[in-house]
Amino acid sequence: MLCRIGYSVMIAFKQSIVNIAEICAQKRVLNFIISAGSRSAPLTLAFVRHPQLTCRTIVDERSAAFIALGLAQQLGAPVGLVCTSGTAGLNYAPAVAEAYYQRIPLLILTADRPPEWIHENDNQTIHQLEMFGKHSRGSFDLPVDDTHPDAKWQIERTISEAINLSLWPIPGPVHINVPLREPLYPDSDLSYQKKCKVVTMTPPQSSLGDQIWDELIHTWKNSKKKLIVGGMHKVNTRLAEKLMKLHNDQNAAIVTDITANLQSVQTIHHSDMILGTESEEAQQDLAPDLLITFGGQVVSKNLKVFLRKYKPKEHWQIQQHGQCIDTFQSLTHILPVSAEYFFEKITEMLFSGKENTNNQISVNAKSYRSIWDTWEEKARDAMRTFMSDIPHSEFLAVNMVLKSLPLQGSLQLGNSFVIRLANFLSLKENRRIQVNSNRGTSGIDGTLSTAVGAALATTQITTIILGDLAFFYDRNALWHNYLPSNLRIIIINNYGGGIFRILNGASELPELREHFEVEHNLTAKNTAADHGLNYTFCDSKEALKKMLPDFFKFQDKPAILEIHTDKEVNAKTFFKFKSIMKELK
Amino acid sequence: MLCRIGYSVMIAFKQSIVNIAEICAQKRVLNFIISAGSRSAPLTLAFVRHPQLTCRTIVDERSAAFIALGLAQQLGAPVGLVCTSGTAGLNYAPAVAEAYYQRIPLLILTADRPPEWIHENDNQTIHQLEMFGKHSRGSFDLPVDDTHPDAKWQIERTISEAINLSLWPIPGPVHINVPLREPLYPDSDLSYQKKCKVVTMTPPQSSLGDQIWDELIHTWKNSKKKLIVGGMHKVNTRLAEKLMKLHNDQNAAIVTDITANLQSVQTIHHSDMILGTESEEAQQDLAPDLLITFGGQVVSKNLKVFLRKYKPKEHWQIQQHGQCIDTFQSLTHILPVSAEYFFEKITEMLFSGKENTNNQISVNAKSYRSIWDTWEEKARDAMRTFMSDIPHSEFLAVNMVLKSLPLQGSLQLGNSFVIRLANFLSLKENRRIQVNSNRGTSGIDGTLSTAVGAALATTQITTIILGDLAFFYDRNALWHNYLPSNLRIIIINNYGGGIFRILNGASELPELREHFEVEHNLTAKNTAADHGLNYTFCDSKEALKKMLPDFFKFQDKPAILEIHTDKEVNAKTFFKFKSIMKELK
Repeated sequence: MLCRIGYSVMIAFKQSIVNIAEICAQKRVLNFIISAGSRSAPLTLAFVRHPQLTCRTIVDERSAAFIALGLAQQLGAPVGLVCTSGTAGLNYAPAVAEAYYQRIPLLILTADRPPEWIHENDNQTIHQLEMFGKHSRGSFDLPVDDTHPDAKWQIERTISEAINLSLWPIPGPVHINVPLREPLYPDSDLSYQKKCKVVTMTPPQSSLGDQIWDELIHTWKNSKKKLIVGGMHKVNTRLAEKLMKLHNDQNAAIVTDITANLQSVQTIHHSDMILGTESEEAQQDLAPDLLITFGGQVVSKNLKVFLRKYKPKEHWQIQQHGQCIDTFQSLTHILPVSAEYFFEKITEMLFSGKENTNNQISVNAKSYRSIWDTWEEKARDAMRTFMSDIPHSEFLAVNMVLKSLPLQGSLQLGNSFVIRLANFLSLKENRRIQVNSNRGTSGIDGTLSTAVGAALATTQITTIILGDLAFFYDRNALWHNYLPSNLRIIIINNYGGGIFRILNGASELPELREHFEVEHNLTAKNTAADHGLNYTFCDSKEALKKMLPDFFKFQDKPAILEIHTDKEVNAKTFFKFKSIMKELK
Repeated sequence: MLCRIGYSVMIAFKQSIVNIAEICAQKRVLNFIISAGSRSAPLTLAFVRHPQLTCRTIVDERSAAFIALGLAQQLGAPVGLVCTSGTAGLNYAPAVAEAYYQRIPLLILTADRPPEWIHENDNQTIHQLEMFGKHSRGSFDLPVDDTHPDAKWQIERTISEAINLSLWPIPGPVHINVPLREPLYPDSDLSYQKKCKVVTMTPPQSSLGDQIWDELIHTWKNSKKKLIVGGMHKVNTRLAEKLMKLHNDQNAAIVTDITANLQSVQTIHHSDMILGTESEEAQQDLAPDLLITFGGQVVSKNLKVFLRKYKPKEHWQIQQHGQCIDTFQSLTHILPVSAEYFFEKITEMLFSGKENTNNQISVNAKSYRSIWDTWEEKARDAMRTFMSDIPHSEFLAVNMVLKSLPLQGSLQLGNSFVIRLANFLSLKENRRIQVNSNRGTSGIDGTLSTAVGAALATTQITTIILGDLAFFYDRNALWHNYLPSNLRIIIINNYGGGIFRILNGASELPELREHFEVEHNLTAKNTAADHGLNYTFCDSKEALKKMLPDFFKFQDKPAILEIHTDKEVNAKTFFKFKSIMKELK
């Protein structure tokens, strides 16, 4: 250990604050995103000097928090945030809400002035307690004086509790407010105490009793049309294996969101397109009587509309909490266990003894899955025909990018139109790519920063595809000294919020250009130059095809590929796709 | 009136929502900063189409809110903000806190999904109720259905109440959450109803009774050392006139903050420098026995330290509320009236019948004011000598800029070091310049946007002086289609947070460059090009001297003047100033 243990000199600030860094290290919170400040200096120094912690300093707190989110999302572990007093922490709020709904653990430490100086017109003081409202999984205020041993005990115990709450029962952000008196800078070395108080926590494994399993199996066997829907979920190979086994049952079909990270399982790749059909007959054929869902948010509006219209008799939601999140308005049963456990157990009960035939068994021509499979073929053909005949546009560009992605790596999808396109197109199953998107709250405010954070977690290529508004909104994501060369940014620039041009009702408004699209003529060229990224621009499918392979090769710097598209061509192309989709039958 | 009254066709969305625009117009909330969104479309259209309202659309909500703040600050009237559901509104939070502490009226309307869809994994839904916590003067949730007449009544009444609360008793931000169902776009013209419900409110005039006045006058007359301190305050010519009359009393001295906008009154221009003296004797001479304060925050740390150390016998705070904001730890008496009333009445009671001699009476050599005046001369001489002999640095540059400002206009001072320098230097009294700074919370997060908002309120030159970190942090301030040509941006670029280099304790840290200053090598050149601003760079005092006059002349575009300074030279220069200040005697 490199800790400078026993270096018992006078220190300029509280040992209990220094101990926070040690507790974090022991509880495996190893990464910190710091924003510069004077009030927060004791925290900054405690974390920066701890030999086991990695600290990066980012000026813009809004971006800092989304970078932390991207990092935590990939690491599956809490990432710490440190900022000074005042409005600094309020800039975290958008990322905190996203982390809350995307269920990503963040440990937020906001420095504060001592409580007696709040609301006294002193600098950088606001109401910091509970500053993230309902969007935190825990909110704490440390004592400003730690001379009494009970106060030291409170500080140390609180850090453990906060880290525990960031992980269980539902991962998410926790907030610790840290009031600090001067002096804020040490006059000697810091001393880390290995023996500080740490409370570990082991999350339990949840399972269901035999009787409920019997009932579930009974319902399963009596349901002829079982649809399994996977929402946002991290990569889980074991879960994927279990789901594959469900293909033994011809009456079960699986559709998953692009952010479910189950490309390898999915045999139905175009559910979002299929369910856009206006054929009532088709929709009735495809409607499940038993719906089983797991994971978080789903992107497909068509799926939502379809399931809300054709309500299954039963809808089981596999989730590890009791909230009635009823996205499809048909929820009947919450099963508070992990998806991995649920599908392991159900496949074991259904198919034990049988060989895992891995989707090789013959499919009954009239089975529920065969209906889906038939539709998948129709949609695939229609998509192929459509694609072969469209001009350079965001639809075409996103398709080309998705097909050119490296075989491994990480992909972040921007909100608004990019993720909708990607979900229509889906990823090829032969790629081992973790797909993420800020669909917790579906904001455009921090997608680029999230990708930067994700890229910092790996050496593999991390790609983000996003629109121009999302790029410029969050360009401070690039303003720091840690930009990793494995980052690839693809901007689909249509010079405004092109999505409004395809929204019913919005496209015809006289206010469209000024107040909805918010037209501009920016490119990312100067931003790339300012922040030292490689930059390529392209405005045709031929050029794009030529550029893509090199773009994903090793580069000495992170790189931007900016794809110019025309709003009107984009809209026309999408309307063409929409009519093809509607007419599917 | 241009209102399309009586255009009674089927409309696609609720008349009560359309009426919000009419109520705002009637209650003189005439300016709106909108951020694009679909859920907020009914609000956007209601405001944009109303003939009396001016609407501007800004993509980045953080910037939008600070622009609204700058506009409201200059107009002295509430400015409206409109955004879509989800994290959009959270990006307002820093500006909302600043508005709360700077007491600037904002009317914030956040569109929301209907309540039944919150927390159901639907897009762009978060907990929006009370989303600004304690930093709003009122928080409302409109009913989603207005079919019952009482619901219509509630909506209309709420708008009046919110606007009233944004102005009185303490001006500040108010929040109205507006849940909206589809359809979000109208299928016909909107109809504004002039006869919608509007509740007007007339704020009262507060005064003090005769008996308390007798007591106050008694104390005044018996105090030999009366110090009047003005904090942040808007321009008020009447107040200035009344304060001038206090110069009839030789035992009264007036010092005001640079943001008090009382340059014309102040005879002591260098109080911040004077109070930096280490001479105990001097400080004792200058210490008041009666302290009278008015206005908001004060910048001077020296003043705070001085008054906290030498506590007056009595401290009267003139403020229009009852909070014990005790910045100097000596507060004894709150007088909840306006400063204008207080100083009008006290001068009337003290000097009625006497001629207003406008500071021309002879000053007793040993009076309290003569002591201040003597110190003012010493400080002025020391400052002049210091200034004549320093190299190109931020100290010199800010001084040159302040001296070159147009005779009229508006000045925004960036937080961190810029405002501290400006407060040391002070503004010449012959200028009619309104000075503002985001000292409510002293954040760097929205200073540029605030200046943009301020510039939109006038055709006079609006200048902002700010550091490089504050500029880049908030560069989205320039990303829209409304940049006014009267905006002048002066960036003091020292390529990082230079202030840490002059903070005791911070300057020697090995972590200084990476984790405190956060060094970078950016200039604003590319940002200026991206957003269509004129751009000039300079790195010497000679060049600066040459450039300044032209910079403030009419230009067809807003303009940036970027002044390169060297961090180490800056620090050395400041330390030299500090030692001169300390040794004043």
